[in-house]
Amino acid sequence: MSINKLVIIGVGLIGGSFALALKKAGMVKRVVGVGRTRKNLNTALKLGVIDELSLDAALAMRDADMVLIGTPVGQMPGVMKAIAPHLGAKTIVTDGGSTKQDVVACARKYLGAHFANFVPAHPMAGTENSGAAAAFAELYRGRKVIVVPQPETSPRAVRVVRAAWTACGANVVRLRAREHDEILAAVSHLPHVAAFALMGTLANRKDAKRILGFSAGGLRDTVRISGSSPEMWRDIFLANRSALLADIDKYLHEIKLLRALLQRKDGDALQARFEHARHARERWLVKAKRD
Amino acid sequence: MSINKLVIIGVGLIGGSFALALKKAGMVKRVVGVGRTRKNLNTALKLGVIDELSLDAALAMRDADMVLIGTPVGQMPGVMKAIAPHLGAKTIVTDGGSTKQDVVACARKYLGAHFANFVPAHPMAGTENSGAAAAFAELYRGRKVIVVPQPETSPRAVRVVRAAWTACGANVVRLRAREHDEILAAVSHLPHVAAFALMGTLANRKDAKRILGFSAGGLRDTVRISGSSPEMWRDIFLANRSALLADIDKYLHEIKLLRALLQRKDGDALQARFEHARHARERWLVKAKRD
Repeated sequence: MSINKLVIIGVGLIGGSFALALKKAGMVKRVVGVGRTRKNLNTALKLGVIDELSLDAALAMRDADMVLIGTPVGQMPGVMKAIAPHLGAKTIVTDGGSTKQDVVACARKYLGAHFANFVPAHPMAGTENSGAAAAFAELYRGRKVIVVPQPETSPRAVRVVRAAWTACGANVVRLRAREHDEILAAVSHLPHVAAFALMGTLANRKDAKRILGFSAGGLRDTVRISGSSPEMWRDIFLANRSALLADIDKYLHEIKLLRALLQRKDGDALQARFEHARHARERWLVKAKRD
Repeated sequence: MSINKLVIIGVGLIGGSFALALKKAGMVKRVVGVGRTRKNLNTALKLGVIDELSLDAALAMRDADMVLIGTPVGQMPGVMKAIAPHLGAKTIVTDGGSTKQDVVACARKYLGAHFANFVPAHPMAGTENSGAAAAFAELYRGRKVIVVPQPETSPRAVRVVRAAWTACGANVVRLRAREHDEILAAVSHLPHVAAFALMGTLANRKDAKRILGFSAGGLRDTVRISGSSPEMWRDIFLANRSALLADIDKYLHEIKLLRALLQRKDGDALQARFEHARHARERWLVKAKRD
């Protein structure tokens, strides 16, 4: 399989790394980057992430074999509306959006007949950095990519998108969109609540600068993902609102439980909660290493 | 300065790394490890962390130049009570306990005349691993060590303990015990609440094993410190209870704020909270790199 022209709309960590990985795999001839402003695209061009740039998504669709929408999910309605009339009959569209039910609904609404060529996808990879400069070809190596094809989705489109992600070094897994969103609320979106809120709690203090000087690696790792793109995470929160609200409530419940045990000085029960968490982490990491 | 006989009571990550760092710096001739059970001490002996082992802290005090108590803070009353009658007039005692007001109170209660030779200390370093096998000589390089000498503490004892930590590669900073505990509640103990509770929330689910298979590096870093020793953290929580309860309440407040903004779909305000956290993290990391 070879892609003559790949269009990346939103050349950030996700879209840029997809382009770099496919280039490295020799699977793509030409990458066109589309964005809202010239600055990030120029960086992408200079770093060899893309070969051409365009500020007009509609124009860039001409002769495109594959289009990856790598924007925050909040921008997808606008993007899909803009590109739909210009998509070729065989152009395959995919995305890297962090939520899937809303992206599927949006595609169904705006892509019209081209919906059959749209394969919703989400790579389980990322860093706290954003923009084209953060992209690297190895981002997806050994990571899971979830695809959520719909009843209308053409088998050819699924095959091509699977092959592309596989060429990036990823393992492709199929889920239902709702299942995806519920799982991601727990293992990705909730950790962002924890990290943003923890960093926010410390940032609220007048003596934040001084006390942060006494922190060690524990805090640094715990809040690493609070460095993630605020715009992207606003969109994810809103898009996965109901699942995330339910998970936030579970998290609040667990913190309040720890608080109550501490309040009544119940050391044994506190220790038991810590063991419970620690064992789950150990089992998970042992399994992750084995897989 | 040279230490003829160093006794480490509790040869774990903290005590073991102290011994290894001083050995590497050529500052210590002989290290005696004291512990509750033979297994960990045998490991320490095999790895060259200690040169001799003892299950009797009192006996080990004979001719000791320096004693580091590296046990969880909950064991310190028992340890201090046991060693006090056997301490030499010139033996300097220090600790690596994660809280300081309780350790100072305990030392004042049990060490008697030897209290003047006790220098309470706490290195701002650690990993999620525990036991002698987790120790390494470089743990303290470039890290802060907080010492909290009391009015009674002899200047000679402070000098010697400062010199030892400096030889480990650490930067020694002096604080009041209360100030130490308040700062640590925020930058170390609260992150452990966040991490233990997050990992606990996920562990509570019946489908924990499956959903954890879809996690990426974000979750992994956010919960890393939930792998820390449950016994040690039970003691820290109980020892720093009132400061930590206040900080847990601030954290709950911040999470509830995010929840309320999400509930009413206030994307702008959510994004502003994320920016707030992100900027504080950036400023902190820039400063940390410069220091």
